[in-house]
Amino acid sequence: MKEWKRLTSKENAVIKLVSSLQGSAKARRENGLFVLEGLRICEDALENGVRFTMLFVSDGAADRFSDAAARFAANAAECYRIPDHLFAKISDTKSPQGICAVCAMASKPVGEIDPAGRYVALERLADPANLGAVARTAEALGVSGLLVSADGCDPYSPKALRASMGTLLRLPLFMADNLASELSKTGLTLIACVVDPSAQPIGRVTFSNGCALLIGNEANGLTEHMKQAADQTVTIPMRGKAESLNAAAAAAIAMWEMMR
Amino acid sequence: MKEWKRLTSKENAVIKLVSSLQGSAKARRENGLFVLEGLRICEDALENGVRFTMLFVSDGAADRFSDAAARFAANAAECYRIPDHLFAKISDTKSPQGICAVCAMASKPVGEIDPAGRYVALERLADPANLGAVARTAEALGVSGLLVSADGCDPYSPKALRASMGTLLRLPLFMADNLASELSKTGLTLIACVVDPSAQPIGRVTFSNGCALLIGNEANGLTEHMKQAADQTVTIPMRGKAESLNAAAAAAIAMWEMMR
Repeated sequence: MKEWKRLTSKENAVIKLVSSLQGSAKARRENGLFVLEGLRICEDALENGVRFTMLFVSDGAADRFSDAAARFAANAAECYRIPDHLFAKISDTKSPQGICAVCAMASKPVGEIDPAGRYVALERLADPANLGAVARTAEALGVSGLLVSADGCDPYSPKALRASMGTLLRLPLFMADNLASELSKTGLTLIACVVDPSAQPIGRVTFSNGCALLIGNEANGLTEHMKQAADQTVTIPMRGKAESLNAAAAAAIAMWEMMR
Repeated sequence: MKEWKRLTSKENAVIKLVSSLQGSAKARRENGLFVLEGLRICEDALENGVRFTMLFVSDGAADRFSDAAARFAANAAECYRIPDHLFAKISDTKSPQGICAVCAMASKPVGEIDPAGRYVALERLADPANLGAVARTAEALGVSGLLVSADGCDPYSPKALRASMGTLLRLPLFMADNLASELSKTGLTLIACVVDPSAQPIGRVTFSNGCALLIGNEANGLTEHMKQAADQTVTIPMRGKAESLNAAAAAAIAMWEMMR
């Protein structure tokens, strides 16, 4: 039997840690840890061999989900039982299920990129829901992995993890402090997606192994620095009055073309 | 000069009407009216020739946005100035800009479909953010119009209008009480998008003028009734462990193939 420790104070250092991990990208980065909240995503993590550094189960959840809690506990280094009101304090949701796990980030350095893979790279993406949506589509289409710039939104934020439907736990994820220069060293063909009618229409591009699609910020697109690092510039031709496609929709179409 | 009426009571019938239009799809349907909130979307509406049945401007906004308020007023049948605290009551956002307009719904009956057009039809879509995202992509790709089933989420909800970035004001919109039977009478070729590896891969489909893509509910897909009404069944081949693509991403890829 796994030993369960009981915590009851919101001043406890462990409780304070998990609260800060829920709310702050900086805390996640400094500790190399993030939080998975809810039954479904913890199950996903278990199936994908993600180890739990800490497991938190509320008193209510220990009754309601006793089987799941026992399975999760077997996968956890430390297990904590806490009162429902304390769980509400560490939860990121309005109606918490009462189960969450702290895990170690598994993002890789860009140096471990497969030179024959087909990747998507997000530069300064701002909306974690878009990042999660791109990850979900990327996995479904068989993309080799996702690169994100460290100055964009955090792939380990609760919102990104939720929007990804657990795919961020499976898809190889690479974080880069300087995405343009790190990508240039990989040898991948870099294909910049831009809103520019004079760029090559993406439907006419022939993709080969060893490439990365570059997708920029929702409002401002790719930086000049990134565009200059690119080998090719492509666009999704648009006909309506819309100024641009949503970043997740544009990424879906571009990844579809890359993987077809 | 336009005459501005002053309202100060939250018990006023006009204030109650706009509150109910913000919060309730039933109220919108019964009145045939909906609300556009914020400077940007009201500007979009003006540019697209959408007439304002009523215009509401808070005291603060009348100072801050006096030029825009005057232009909007020239386009409005009735103009109301209200105190900031009363605007907060009719607003759908946490930090209201202080401008909103009530407009008449412009959705059309399915009988007015262009038999040579290329449409997308959403059956029982649940998430207004997905509906708005599909509308935005549809317009950008040049889709002829959007059909929605009346038992799905409301295209005139604040969330759908926001996610569409104003495109729901431009894209021809058709609402159907019985989408399957009404679509069958249009003569369009109906192409059902399903999650089924044995269906025809969408990359191999040849689309001709006079067709409609059928996209189903996020959790349950298309109804059996709708699948039986379809002429063809297609799928987006998936490689990952993801159970399915997000509805907006699937729709983006399917519309891209239809319009390429």
